[in-house]
Amino acid sequence: MDATANPILAEIWRGPILESVHRGAAVVATANGAVIEAWGDPGRVILPRSACKMLQALPLVESGAADAAGLTNRHLALACASHSGDEIHSGLATQWLAEIGLAEPDLRCGVHPPASAAGRDALRRAGRRANQTHNNCSGKHCGFLTVARHLGGGPEYVDPSHPVQQAVRMALEELADETASGFAIDGCSAPNFALSLRGLARAMARFATPRASFTGVRAEAAERLHGAMAAHPELVSGEGRAGTELIRASRAVVKSGAEGVYVAALPGKELGIALKIDDGDSRGSQAAIAALLARHGALERDDPVFKTYADAPILNWRGIAHGHILAGEALRER
Amino acid sequence: MDATANPILAEIWRGPILESVHRGAAVVATANGAVIEAWGDPGRVILPRSACKMLQALPLVESGAADAAGLTNRHLALACASHSGDEIHSGLATQWLAEIGLAEPDLRCGVHPPASAAGRDALRRAGRRANQTHNNCSGKHCGFLTVARHLGGGPEYVDPSHPVQQAVRMALEELADETASGFAIDGCSAPNFALSLRGLARAMARFATPRASFTGVRAEAAERLHGAMAAHPELVSGEGRAGTELIRASRAVVKSGAEGVYVAALPGKELGIALKIDDGDSRGSQAAIAALLARHGALERDDPVFKTYADAPILNWRGIAHGHILAGEALRER
Repeated sequence: MDATANPILAEIWRGPILESVHRGAAVVATANGAVIEAWGDPGRVILPRSACKMLQALPLVESGAADAAGLTNRHLALACASHSGDEIHSGLATQWLAEIGLAEPDLRCGVHPPASAAGRDALRRAGRRANQTHNNCSGKHCGFLTVARHLGGGPEYVDPSHPVQQAVRMALEELADETASGFAIDGCSAPNFALSLRGLARAMARFATPRASFTGVRAEAAERLHGAMAAHPELVSGEGRAGTELIRASRAVVKSGAEGVYVAALPGKELGIALKIDDGDSRGSQAAIAALLARHGALERDDPVFKTYADAPILNWRGIAHGHILAGEALRER
Repeated sequence: MDATANPILAEIWRGPILESVHRGAAVVATANGAVIEAWGDPGRVILPRSACKMLQALPLVESGAADAAGLTNRHLALACASHSGDEIHSGLATQWLAEIGLAEPDLRCGVHPPASAAGRDALRRAGRRANQTHNNCSGKHCGFLTVARHLGGGPEYVDPSHPVQQAVRMALEELADETASGFAIDGCSAPNFALSLRGLARAMARFATPRASFTGVRAEAAERLHGAMAAHPELVSGEGRAGTELIRASRAVVKSGAEGVYVAALPGKELGIALKIDDGDSRGSQAAIAALLARHGALERDDPVFKTYADAPILNWRGIAHGHILAGEALRER
């Protein structure tokens, strides 16, 4: 990675000085795999992390497990979420588990405190401790459990050889039209299959155009998951967070992943976007995805949400702006 | 900055995949300005941010203000600190202000919650709100106020034209042996003067060797500040934090700055180190400074503190290690 450094996708200014930069690679592709634009190497292999949750959820719908369990669009949105751990998220996860005859200990995602201050405060006021339903990935894991209940394979559904994960891998590879370059274990203990940025962008373009890209249950599954995320952005991330605000403000479904990953599905333009900030910082990935959405007509540059992530003052502790975050020049032109 | 990318100074692995990298520039220099080793451009101009606090504190001692106010080594360590906002820090700042006949509203650093969870919990339990003494820079600002009281110039001591800031600029330029390349306003509202990495590393080498590098009040001031930081690492940062642990574990005085800056003064080796991670991430700067301290014999590679920052597992939410942070290959060899 050292020999060919990726371009600067976000700039952090302080006064007159360019203080920090976020380099990265990004690809805009069509559903048939044509690369429309790229920064850095489109063949670069990354771990998509949570940015592939809507692809990991495909077996949930395609297998018939979602219908057998009577899941609604709210369940499906939560399956694709990296959520704040607010009551609307952890409560729905708890309810979902009960609906399929399971409970919190059946999850394998581990415990972390709610990502939002509101979620942490609510727990504190209630005198409760965080549990696995507050894990930002709990919806994905409820989905995995629902598939496991339908397909069988035992309780250790995060094992890479479990039928659930084999089905996930197949769906990812088919949508990306490539063989996964191995995998690593994600923060939530599930395997995360490595894909090229081009493959991930292509998968998102197909996800954005399910009826044109697929037939049968896959077309239906992609359409339902895409619709669920678009209809319930508050479940996909949380109030006040980029993952929710960008869906609301744009004509796209977007999803973040750890370590500076973002993807977007642009139905109107029939395009998919995938990007990875080299250093993994979300301030860089948020600036870059907002700029790419604007560049492809899915977000207005005078929208407050665009400004918040791609053209925003950095305030000091007395509320005075002495810094600025700006999408990289390579993304601003055009 | 785009044309010549800096080398990778820290690597973030997940399973078999190099997931993220932190690029940066670093310089190891002697007190006479000779560059012993460099990664990236030693002439690169950066904002040192809080990594220059010991230099910003020189006028406090040199002017006689510290002695006039009866300051101890604990006060001087706090003047050089980016502290956690624990009671030992905010309490000392409050006491210091009272000793010079001032109070919290005289500070101009602004309010932020204590950086440490323990500090925030203590405030919550006491039913108190954070004030400016909890700002990580409150000690530096107590120092500025002490100098202002001694030199005059009015209450707005963070104005770049105030005598305090003029004295700070002069001290920085003299130690770095260069003219500051302008300034920007720091998060705490004080001006932060831009220096080259080489200049900053040279300043740190001189700070490490005060009796050899200076005469008179400057030699005494640098020696006292250096001694104060070495004697009170718990005041310079806080329990469990890199800034404190690295001083305790190493034969060096180290100091972090925002946006991925670190400096170190190595008295035994008569060297100074300055580094800046391009993307501003502290996990990168901590790995790099630990590796550089080890490389120059000031920290053992089998020390748990070295391991914590430069060769550490990344655990998932179930406590299983699936990732690893490692100082960059360019720093590991030798």
